[in-house]
Amino acid sequence: MRNELATTTFLTPVQDYLPLVEKRMRAEASGNHPDLSAALEHLLSSGGKRIRPTIALLTGEMLGAEPERLVTLAASIELLHTATLVHDDLIDGALLRRGIPTLNARWSPAATILTGDFIFARAAKLAAETNSVEVMHLFAETLSIIVNGEVTQLLANHTPVARKNYFQRIHAKTASMFELATTAAAILSEVEEKTIKNLSTFGYEIGMAFQIVDDVLDFTGEQAMVGKPVASDLLHGIVTLPTIKYYELQPDDPDLLPIINGKYLDEAGLTRLAESIRVSGAVEDAMDEAHQFVARGLDALSFLPHSQEKQALEDLAGYIVNRIM
Amino acid sequence: MRNELATTTFLTPVQDYLPLVEKRMRAEASGNHPDLSAALEHLLSSGGKRIRPTIALLTGEMLGAEPERLVTLAASIELLHTATLVHDDLIDGALLRRGIPTLNARWSPAATILTGDFIFARAAKLAAETNSVEVMHLFAETLSIIVNGEVTQLLANHTPVARKNYFQRIHAKTASMFELATTAAAILSEVEEKTIKNLSTFGYEIGMAFQIVDDVLDFTGEQAMVGKPVASDLLHGIVTLPTIKYYELQPDDPDLLPIINGKYLDEAGLTRLAESIRVSGAVEDAMDEAHQFVARGLDALSFLPHSQEKQALEDLAGYIVNRIM
Repeated sequence: MRNELATTTFLTPVQDYLPLVEKRMRAEASGNHPDLSAALEHLLSSGGKRIRPTIALLTGEMLGAEPERLVTLAASIELLHTATLVHDDLIDGALLRRGIPTLNARWSPAATILTGDFIFARAAKLAAETNSVEVMHLFAETLSIIVNGEVTQLLANHTPVARKNYFQRIHAKTASMFELATTAAAILSEVEEKTIKNLSTFGYEIGMAFQIVDDVLDFTGEQAMVGKPVASDLLHGIVTLPTIKYYELQPDDPDLLPIINGKYLDEAGLTRLAESIRVSGAVEDAMDEAHQFVARGLDALSFLPHSQEKQALEDLAGYIVNRIM
Repeated sequence: MRNELATTTFLTPVQDYLPLVEKRMRAEASGNHPDLSAALEHLLSSGGKRIRPTIALLTGEMLGAEPERLVTLAASIELLHTATLVHDDLIDGALLRRGIPTLNARWSPAATILTGDFIFARAAKLAAETNSVEVMHLFAETLSIIVNGEVTQLLANHTPVARKNYFQRIHAKTASMFELATTAAAILSEVEEKTIKNLSTFGYEIGMAFQIVDDVLDFTGEQAMVGKPVASDLLHGIVTLPTIKYYELQPDDPDLLPIINGKYLDEAGLTRLAESIRVSGAVEDAMDEAHQFVARGLDALSFLPHSQEKQALEDLAGYIVNRIM
């Protein structure tokens, strides 16, 4: 995964800063219980694309943020992301993430809950160390949005086959943190309100696209590459954009009924449905929509003068819809 | 519990503000999933002494903090406290708190984890709304201390019969948040550094005393009043100050061996030990120590001019060591 990213060009402007972000995150465990350090080390060395800190760094460098504060912000955002994954994996009972054992696969639920809490605390500490009250507001608001989205999904009887619900869900789950990355970096750069707003839009739009592509890859990706069975969302009754697009194309397919009614007992039917979705053009329709999100994101960037970082953000937006994992 | 407090005098200066704190906390659920509102409502109506917000309010009023920011701070601290209780009760498998069902008694572990996360997020949001970067730092640092303390206790094979470990533990568990309440309120009051430091000391000392008294009440309180079996800490192998004091008095009591060695299988022996501790003078020795903490706290306050709020903080410190529940 890292090798793939290493060949991309958008990392060039941040290659000196990403190691500092890693260092900043790892430093947060020191002085605490050794098992907390070990857990954080395990989590941080499990890979991950570091796409959120990369976006924050590129945005801040482009707009002239002070490097030290920017590195702190980037570390804060990646730790917030890491903390949510720890609790998510525990709730889902996931034993692997990116092919590496999750914390809950090795630790008790109690230790896993507390490790997640600890990483939240350290993420909040780093957010405070940006010395920006506005960034702190955004950080807390984003965490609320993420958790509210998780609660909504957890307590729903089933996920409706409805665009509105889907877009709300992927905003909470993914786009909110991309938006945080660009907005907070712009705030630290002390640029005018209009610029901050445009960067917020860019973060939101590419974040939405990122999650749509993730959901498409769940249908089309190789099992070994995404680390879970193909169409695993659908098999768990989770409705994503390809299914919604398929419903628009073939509303009368009887295989859709269990999904519409929230009953996922018929695995054979769901497997058949996944195959129907794959060959129906719904996946391509979903990708079209991802491209539209990216186009709106790029549009929001277009008012900025050319720079190496702006080019990198454009490349990154392109990578989001062209990646295969 | 509330009736007992209602008869005390130290609430007089804050009686107009405490309802605003309640309102501020409850408002944090609005706009989110209705079950989150219901959960927060359930937690907030389960009683609780509101001693942490009371301390913050008294300190800030005494030192001239702006009331709106002070109410926000007080609500933030009580929500932080509430969030830690939600995860604690889940980890302990506690089904009742203050005689009322815990969240985990009625909800799934997944929903309980996320509700705790949500309340952390809203506490952080309120902390950010104090518009003080310093308060945010303290807030995040305090959360780290609390969680690190919980992890340390969880992962220890057993709790050593050692003062140092005990004091570290009760600092993390309780005194850190009392210290946050007084320090953050002083920071919002924009008083000189020396005053902030003295208020930190006051918060720390009365917080330590508060937990020692809690631990003493576990030995001496009526079951119905503390809501759990007498000496429940000891029966769970948790060493508190009365046991440490008893060990200093009677190091050779063979009933201490399971506690020293971390083996708590012999319930009859532990029950006998609890009774020995109760009649040995160890409880009184522990209370003496609580009084010393309070005395140091009052000493740190003494440099301040007389005011109704200062008197109330002194009364509150007295209440901490004289309360019977």
